[in-house]
Amino acid sequence: MKLFSESKTIGFKDFVCEGGGYLRKVDIAYETYGTLNENRSNAILVCHALSGSAHAAGKLKDGTVGWFSPLIGPGKALDTNRYFVICSNVLGSCFGTTGPSSIDEHGNYYAMNFPVITVTDMVNLEKRLIDELGIKKLVTVIGGSMGGMQALKWAVAYPDNCKSAIPMACPAYSSPKSIAFNKIGRDIIMNDPKWANGDYYGTEGPVEGLALARMVGHITYLSFEAMNKKFGRTVRRGSDIFDLIEGKFEVERYLFHNGFKFTRNFDPNSYLYITRALDLYDIRRNCSSLEDALGRITAKTLLVSFTTDELYLPEETGLIYKTMKELDKDVRYFNIEAESGHDSFLIEYDRFQGLIKGFLENL
Amino acid sequence: MKLFSESKTIGFKDFVCEGGGYLRKVDIAYETYGTLNENRSNAILVCHALSGSAHAAGKLKDGTVGWFSPLIGPGKALDTNRYFVICSNVLGSCFGTTGPSSIDEHGNYYAMNFPVITVTDMVNLEKRLIDELGIKKLVTVIGGSMGGMQALKWAVAYPDNCKSAIPMACPAYSSPKSIAFNKIGRDIIMNDPKWANGDYYGTEGPVEGLALARMVGHITYLSFEAMNKKFGRTVRRGSDIFDLIEGKFEVERYLFHNGFKFTRNFDPNSYLYITRALDLYDIRRNCSSLEDALGRITAKTLLVSFTTDELYLPEETGLIYKTMKELDKDVRYFNIEAESGHDSFLIEYDRFQGLIKGFLENL
Repeated sequence: MKLFSESKTIGFKDFVCEGGGYLRKVDIAYETYGTLNENRSNAILVCHALSGSAHAAGKLKDGTVGWFSPLIGPGKALDTNRYFVICSNVLGSCFGTTGPSSIDEHGNYYAMNFPVITVTDMVNLEKRLIDELGIKKLVTVIGGSMGGMQALKWAVAYPDNCKSAIPMACPAYSSPKSIAFNKIGRDIIMNDPKWANGDYYGTEGPVEGLALARMVGHITYLSFEAMNKKFGRTVRRGSDIFDLIEGKFEVERYLFHNGFKFTRNFDPNSYLYITRALDLYDIRRNCSSLEDALGRITAKTLLVSFTTDELYLPEETGLIYKTMKELDKDVRYFNIEAESGHDSFLIEYDRFQGLIKGFLENL
Repeated sequence: MKLFSESKTIGFKDFVCEGGGYLRKVDIAYETYGTLNENRSNAILVCHALSGSAHAAGKLKDGTVGWFSPLIGPGKALDTNRYFVICSNVLGSCFGTTGPSSIDEHGNYYAMNFPVITVTDMVNLEKRLIDELGIKKLVTVIGGSMGGMQALKWAVAYPDNCKSAIPMACPAYSSPKSIAFNKIGRDIIMNDPKWANGDYYGTEGPVEGLALARMVGHITYLSFEAMNKKFGRTVRRGSDIFDLIEGKFEVERYLFHNGFKFTRNFDPNSYLYITRALDLYDIRRNCSSLEDALGRITAKTLLVSFTTDELYLPEETGLIYKTMKELDKDVRYFNIEAESGHDSFLIEYDRFQGLIKGFLENL
């Protein structure tokens, strides 16, 4: 059956960023699925990852399927017969919410004049949206990767406003290894002459740079074993591996294809700002310790990691669990056997949808 | 005490590469330490990794210490009182051996006209050097990473010419994940406009591209935990993390510093050719199976891997061991507890020098 999906944008005034930046006006694009009940007590917030959008479920006119579709719909884990599911595009992105490719109050592209943003800023903007919709308390906030960071931050920053939280495939703070990958991605973009210090709007822009940055990211999303299974040392049919320096291993073709595909609709400057937000993510910020930060949580928490995640290791999610458990919080943790590495939360739905459904039904 | 080091170059004619390429003349640069005995039966060949040179031990005039110094010298694991230690620069490199930055017979830089090369080609050139020195049988061939691949290939290709082999931190064939990292490094270089299709000699060249490619490599050399310990989330003194998109995490400074340091003396085209040789490395090539390939080995073999190696996993070295063991070969394997990731073979000498010394004394 066709899922009802409503796409809207709301504008807010005077947004102050954690890093001190100020935005006179911020738009936030969001979609909703299902119906908000009279008490406004059945809302779930879904948070997306680095490259995502508000389009979490249903089909767009161009056929694009929502990025969390298998989980959202009638009878599904996020059951639209019961819940009103909201997904908004994060601050700094390029799918309807204000970001570096938006026009500022002087009629210019923000470009590199956009303020540095953080996951906290994304969450604060989502909070404004939830307030605007008249929702006092969310049933849950759920997301994977950067979406998981937002879910955890919601639980820490707004304990009164979320009954539960489901952070998946995310750490309590970004590791230096993840920062290193992001740094290289940014440097590749900024080293592309077509980046032009960020003022490339109206021109081709740093397409190669963004594609390469995305390729770096892709490596971190797949596990060693997943790559062995998916590609092995397969050489593309008809290629001579000795023929050219460019070579023709299947894994190279895949990276190339996906890297450039990404450039069709993602803004390079958004990539710079959002990866920096990932680097800056540290749930301990403005708290005296990890215990202090997680001690603020009152939401019933379901933590999920994936055994083959090589970007945000299970041990990192495990640390959140261990700390919350010691603080006697209502928390459970599942390190799920999965093959697809970090991307498991976007691929191996079968392995965790029952878990989420059960968790929500027993809130 | 000062180690005697002799630096020489020998030229050979008519070198045919595995991929079909032909070089009319090839120079090979090498250093030796210790004295070749009358029977020429005390020689050890040390093979270097991607960025190495023939300068394995002793000090150059500019103060550069050999990359394997702690292991080579009087009384050390590779005891120059007993052994005649040889290290040569690999084919395709830029430290004296013929590579893309060399001049061809027409007086032009090879640049991208250099033929595609493989680890087998490197080994075949080393074999010519060993023949030229009148050495019939090496005591051992030792190396880590690409050096380990060469050591294993020596044992497979020239069983009559090496009594033993010590491949460290290397697989039987390159994984798609390692190929992916190399591919991105190459693409970054080739996307730098100053690469100019490889014809950048006499100009600045793709300095930024090479630095970025090296940074990608660096991430794979360090382990997740090593990066946590070394950098954590430390921010450089005096920086405001919210200040600039470029940010100032210590790990970023480290990558930047090491990336650019590398460009001072490494040739970008050599980086393209040698990483491609790594991708093409497959000990099974021209053999019917891994068993067939490793079945050709007669050398007593010592395999070493490092627990935290995230580039060439211990399981990969373990597969060589398992296969050789099943073939009833004289092989032993140590997966050494180390913290420094792939680079452990260049850092944590204390953890394996005794092992190597003992292995050689009991040949």
